[in-house]
Amino acid sequence: MNSQLESFSQQAINEMEIGFKVNLINSITGAKSANLIGTLDEQGIENLAVFSSVTHIGSSPALIGFFLRPNAEVKRDTFNNILNRGEYTINSIPRTLIKKAHTTARKYPAECSEFIECGIESTYLENIAVPFVKEAPIKIHLKLKQVVPIEANATKLVIGEVAKVFVHKSLLGTKGHIDLQAGQVVSIGGCDTYYELKQLDRFDYSMIGAGSF
Amino acid sequence: MNSQLESFSQQAINEMEIGFKVNLINSITGAKSANLIGTLDEQGIENLAVFSSVTHIGSSPALIGFFLRPNAEVKRDTFNNILNRGEYTINSIPRTLIKKAHTTARKYPAECSEFIECGIESTYLENIAVPFVKEAPIKIHLKLKQVVPIEANATKLVIGEVAKVFVHKSLLGTKGHIDLQAGQVVSIGGCDTYYELKQLDRFDYSMIGAGSF
Repeated sequence: MNSQLESFSQQAINEMEIGFKVNLINSITGAKSANLIGTLDEQGIENLAVFSSVTHIGSSPALIGFFLRPNAEVKRDTFNNILNRGEYTINSIPRTLIKKAHTTARKYPAECSEFIECGIESTYLENIAVPFVKEAPIKIHLKLKQVVPIEANATKLVIGEVAKVFVHKSLLGTKGHIDLQAGQVVSIGGCDTYYELKQLDRFDYSMIGAGSF
Repeated sequence: MNSQLESFSQQAINEMEIGFKVNLINSITGAKSANLIGTLDEQGIENLAVFSSVTHIGSSPALIGFFLRPNAEVKRDTFNNILNRGEYTINSIPRTLIKKAHTTARKYPAECSEFIECGIESTYLENIAVPFVKEAPIKIHLKLKQVVPIEANATKLVIGEVAKVFVHKSLLGTKGHIDLQAGQVVSIGGCDTYYELKQLDRFDYSMIGAGSF
């Protein structure tokens, strides 16, 4: 078994070619959630950016976080808009949108809307001021709760409280489960690889829930 | 479109039956990484627990985090062991292990090893003191870097620096990508639903990497 394993020491990782390192280290945690974060700037220009670090933090209250790099130029608009407006949306990515969603990570000038540049349709629901992704089967409206500075590498953890959830009716189970496979919701491996989901099994006790959520 | 959407307000979420709420709020971020965290207590008893909050935090240095609830009784051993020893392992879950992995979330007495109780084989690699999951195609040795208290809901973000990575050779691409589909690495939806991954596409520019990793 050991002879089938390739290994990389901390020193080898530190000295790795940057592209190889980014691909490797982003891949080792397994596939990550894929979401589009929608915001609005002070002039009313829409902004949209793909994130693979959106993470469940708690259910009571319902809190969701994502990580921002200090030098994340292409994501700076997202963060500034969230600070200015205090609200934003998180939208799931269906497989039909992966290419367009991925291109939101390009650097566009602040006066451009990624919705328009990338050909993704926005929608406004009820009286919520910030834009949602029309095609997303799961849409979440969040209000900024806390920005946690991470000393270890100068990233920020941005935490929002769920203000409203919209889910396509056909995906919602009687016990609150969402059928991610039927919704064609994708995940991201590394920085550039999109995966679809196929349900293997659901266990009849939610022990993980009892313990850690 | 709007008539096809079910919506839940913040108040409705707060007042929801707890099981429905936990399933719903854990599902809305999309599928999450599935990993087993291996530790060793002061008496040398092995501990293993499944987590769905393992998240990439940065590549330079290589940092990985996970979230712990304040009242996470079944995960208390994991945290105490990490604090005591300063090191731990994160192991991917292949589809052959999902049922056994899920049962690690049950509450076992501290003197029991989940490796034994759940029938998961441990392995020790090189001179690393903490146990890995033998069947995991990706195995990571981490050293505790920082524990970040999250004020918003009294959780903790536990951050480790990658000390060594072991990857099954057949999964490692020439540019550092790991083939998660070939490794049969699973993801978790909600608290109880396991998904396998099927690669849709890889885009030839890693813009996300440039921007946010």
